[in-house]
Amino acid sequence: MSETSAPPSGSSSGSLSDRTTPARMAERVSADRDALNQLLDSSLLGHVGFVTEDGQPYVLPIAIARNGAEVLLHGSTGSRWLRLIAQGIPVSLAVTELDALVVARSAFESSMRYRSAVLFGRCEQLTGAAKQDALDVLTDALIPGRVAEVRRPTDKELAATLVLRLQVEEFSIKIAQEWPDDPPSDLAESAWAGVLPRQLSYPQAWPAPDLREGIEVPASVRRLLGE
Amino acid sequence: MSETSAPPSGSSSGSLSDRTTPARMAERVSADRDALNQLLDSSLLGHVGFVTEDGQPYVLPIAIARNGAEVLLHGSTGSRWLRLIAQGIPVSLAVTELDALVVARSAFESSMRYRSAVLFGRCEQLTGAAKQDALDVLTDALIPGRVAEVRRPTDKELAATLVLRLQVEEFSIKIAQEWPDDPPSDLAESAWAGVLPRQLSYPQAWPAPDLREGIEVPASVRRLLGE
Repeated sequence: MSETSAPPSGSSSGSLSDRTTPARMAERVSADRDALNQLLDSSLLGHVGFVTEDGQPYVLPIAIARNGAEVLLHGSTGSRWLRLIAQGIPVSLAVTELDALVVARSAFESSMRYRSAVLFGRCEQLTGAAKQDALDVLTDALIPGRVAEVRRPTDKELAATLVLRLQVEEFSIKIAQEWPDDPPSDLAESAWAGVLPRQLSYPQAWPAPDLREGIEVPASVRRLLGE
Repeated sequence: MSETSAPPSGSSSGSLSDRTTPARMAERVSADRDALNQLLDSSLLGHVGFVTEDGQPYVLPIAIARNGAEVLLHGSTGSRWLRLIAQGIPVSLAVTELDALVVARSAFESSMRYRSAVLFGRCEQLTGAAKQDALDVLTDALIPGRVAEVRRPTDKELAATLVLRLQVEEFSIKIAQEWPDDPPSDLAESAWAGVLPRQLSYPQAWPAPDLREGIEVPASVRRLLGE
């Protein structure tokens, strides 16, 4: 594993509690930070884990966006779980992207190429200008360039929305981008082996049933369609 | 919301602790079960939440497969978290599929079409024939038809693998398949609105660098490529 760049495969931690020399740690944390940022930027969804009032583990799927070194979450003020998380209880946020199927010569070696991060920290509720800025970042993470195409949120809409910033205390990231790793005895046999990359696309835009005539598909949507 | 079929949109619970009449409950639980089964069958990945020994919430991404009414998980015996889960502590498993972007006329109404389930229960470790059967189900969930194309697992491989069955005590499922829901004041303006379905595909198969010449791409892989 290189000390100066993100590993092509393997697991490492961006925790400040790592036992390593400060210089090497700074390099590794920086490389991990880049990989984490790329993962966060390519993911629309995270899974937040927390402990409910009665001690049960709960996992909540939630839209995420990165804003610099911060992770933003949002949802309705009507969401009981979001209100609980907003109180600043300890949370764990998993962000995972499956990149490919790894088809090995045996079931045992078959697996997936993936990028996976687990972040630990507590959430803080945003208000005022920081809240409005965060909502713009969340909207543009979902549909890049959309903020410039739509009206500003109303006070009523802002009041109905909870926007949280995850204060990341620690994270670990694992990037698995392997080829099948079959033993020599299997290499000599006749089973095929390889990798099938997963491709995500938006091939079509379906106009809303109530769309007025003459309104063109906007630039933000055309970009997602690859036009 | 219909009482006899899964709702096109909305949230409901398959919990046996629901307060409703037994007949209606049976219908609704059955509809939810169908929707849950479809979601589990279309998902390769779940996120397991649990509480660590020191009281912290943790979320672990993990490959999943459905076997009848059961959910199967597996991984290396070297995984500390999997070994902890195997002890039968309470867990929460979230399975989420994003189906489309909902592009509304405002940022506030923009959202996603998704299917999301949260299951609660405890895991039990499988052994013997049940373990071997479960591994076949897991392999065929990842690459349908692959089990018939590869050799059987060795005793050493079986010993290195932990296979768990989640005993589902309760679950909730939410299916959001909406069109943009813009207020009349926005309908009259000029912003576009619609839905962008997400498409996942496997467009290519990359042969492993160490693949022997003359080995053809197998039927399981050709099916994933859509050939």
